[in-house]
Amino acid sequence: MTDERTPVTVIGLGAMGRALAGAFLDSGHPTTVWNRSPGRADALAARGAAVAATAAEAVTASPLVVVCLLDDASVHQVLDPVASTLTGRTLVNLTNGTPAQARETADWAAWHAADYLDGGIMATPPLIGRPEGFILYSGSRTAFDAHERTLAALARPSYLHSDPGRAALYDLALLSGMYGMFGGVYHALALVRSERVPAKEFAPLLEAWLTAMLPALHIDAAGADSGERTDADASIAMQATGYVNLLDTSRAQGVSTEMVEAMGALLNRAVAEDTSDLVGLLAAERAPAK
Amino acid sequence: MTDERTPVTVIGLGAMGRALAGAFLDSGHPTTVWNRSPGRADALAARGAAVAATAAEAVTASPLVVVCLLDDASVHQVLDPVASTLTGRTLVNLTNGTPAQARETADWAAWHAADYLDGGIMATPPLIGRPEGFILYSGSRTAFDAHERTLAALARPSYLHSDPGRAALYDLALLSGMYGMFGGVYHALALVRSERVPAKEFAPLLEAWLTAMLPALHIDAAGADSGERTDADASIAMQATGYVNLLDTSRAQGVSTEMVEAMGALLNRAVAEDTSDLVGLLAAERAPAK
Ligand SMILES: NC(=O)c1ccc[n+]([C@@H]2O[C@H](COP(=O)([O-])OP(=O)(O)OC[C@H]3O[C@@H](n4cnc5c(N)ncnc54)[C@H](OP(=O)(O)O)[C@@H]3O)[C@@H](O)[C@H]2O)c1
Ligand SMILES: NC(=O)c1ccc[n+]([C@@H]2O[C@H](COP(=O)([O-])OP(=O)(O)OC[C@H]3O[C@@H](n4cnc5c(N)ncnc54)[C@H](OP(=O)(O)O)[C@@H]3O)[C@@H](O)[C@H]2O)c1
Repeated sequence: MTDERTPVTVIGLGAMGRALAGAFLDSGHPTTVWNRSPGRADALAARGAAVAATAAEAVTASPLVVVCLLDDASVHQVLDPVASTLTGRTLVNLTNGTPAQARETADWAAWHAADYLDGGIMATPPLIGRPEGFILYSGSRTAFDAHERTLAALARPSYLHSDPGRAALYDLALLSGMYGMFGGVYHALALVRSERVPAKEFAPLLEAWLTAMLPALHIDAAGADSGERTDADASIAMQATGYVNLLDTSRAQGVSTEMVEAMGALLNRAVAEDTSDLVGLLAAERAPAK
Repeated sequence: MTDERTPVTVIGLGAMGRALAGAFLDSGHPTTVWNRSPGRADALAARGAAVAATAAEAVTASPLVVVCLLDDASVHQVLDPVASTLTGRTLVNLTNGTPAQARETADWAAWHAADYLDGGIMATPPLIGRPEGFILYSGSRTAFDAHERTLAALARPSYLHSDPGRAALYDLALLSGMYGMFGGVYHALALVRSERVPAKEFAPLLEAWLTAMLPALHIDAAGADSGERTDADASIAMQATGYVNLLDTSRAQGVSTEMVEAMGALLNRAVAEDTSDLVGLLAAERAPAK
């Protein structure tokens, strides 16, 4: 089997890079790895990975080079000096970045005659190789079609657009949803802990509640697209009134209101502007100057 | 059947009160309703509800009186003048409020020799009478035990504590989780719409992603209780670095950063304080003065 599999290189062996390399190994791909600091590759080497001595050696080992480093600056610190070795290969950049950075790196790769895919990993390291997560790709459709099966070893691959920046935009949008959710979760847990309820005891209730409420996002999405009012069942005015209880109680319990203030202000603005389109209010031209 | 069912009164026929009264009617309870503004009861009357002419008449019609009004002030505006009619009955207050308000209303009810349950409705009106939602109760255990079966007509009843304020605390904590989640959702939808992607098209991906990430709240809950680091798979430093991309991209796309700034600041504080316990950082004594 192994000889049928595309050889792959993984550059960057942080928590995520190690998971990616491990998933390639599990799928039988000849896997070469490299990391700036030594020692990170030991466990992967024991599982059969080839450990390259230099970044150049790592790139030249495989037609498919996956890079997963801290940020865009580290990608260019590692790859710029070895750019010429990328010629004729496919570079898949799974480092978190902005759409603008993705477009620049795509141009840079094209200049060096490398095919380029930018990707956003929608999974944590334990979910790599499992069905819950997915990876969004944008950029070269040819590269995606050629390597889709190989990339499927990491997480379900989803190709979005030829604009290399599209995956980063979706990635950051999904992350903002996640961080919002966890911001709310942290506040909720802080509130119950203020009455000495262990967070662990409350967490299952919170999970059930957020699971029940999540599908309502389709109502907000429809409202954002149509501009029609969507708050017949739970009026914005009623919500703004109840929100004061949330703020007052947080203060009374000694919990910082920093994570919950912005939503209170947004609800008040929606009441004042007589709209239920909270998504529309976030378009900057309508938001108050900062 | 009907004659076995406890007669119930519902005071307040807003979006939620109408759903509550409808669920009681569906379960065969003799149901009396009252609302400040007339006309709201018409559809319920057609389904068999008795429409009381005054709040006093509504209270005296049933041993179990459910009140669901806009806020605590409206509850007292309606009930204070008719307090003496509550003697010997059970008052179930499903109006959103603070723990302090719940305790005060419990004391007020006790003074008038009424049994008191404070409740937090964890459902939207369309979920009333369906299995997804639930209602949290605290206060008189006797009242809960006597009426649990009747209250089950509304949504799964869950008794928390004899402290009448406990349901309000849990309710507000759960709401803060929900509002955080929706704040993130609104920001996410605003980001993709800035590239003219319809919100409806993106919503299923966002739902899948939040569903995949939600169980990680148990990791945060464990960390909040134990004080141990929980970020081995996704370091706080890496998250703070990536968060800058989220803020930069929001600005570049013309989307207000108001919903996402607080989490960026919290991540930076966690890096500075060398902790992954973001829940602990929200305990006000550790938060920066506002
Ligand atoms: N972990 C997750 O849950 C997750 C999920 C989705 C996406 N991501 C993204 O995946 C990427 C990696 O995340 P991670 O969790 O693996 O982070 P990490 O554990 O902090 O690892 C960071 C990696 O970047 C390397 N690095 C940093 N600066 C460098 C430089 N200037 N030159 C060369 N190498 C440098 C580090 O090498 P050293 O070992 O030499 O320091 C290490 O290999 C990030 O962009 C992150 O946003 C992570
Ligand atoms: N809707 C939801 O999704 C939801 C979910 C959970 C909990 N809740 C809670 O349920 C309660 C009711 O919500 P809702 O959605 O039904 O709100 P709503 O549709 O705005 O209805 C408000 C009700 O309060 C009455 N009211 C307001 N001020 C009053 C006053 N001063 N005196 C007498 N009556 C007054 C209104 O009477 P008029 O008709 O005369 O104005 C109406 O019956 C709120 O506490 C809310 O937080 C709602």
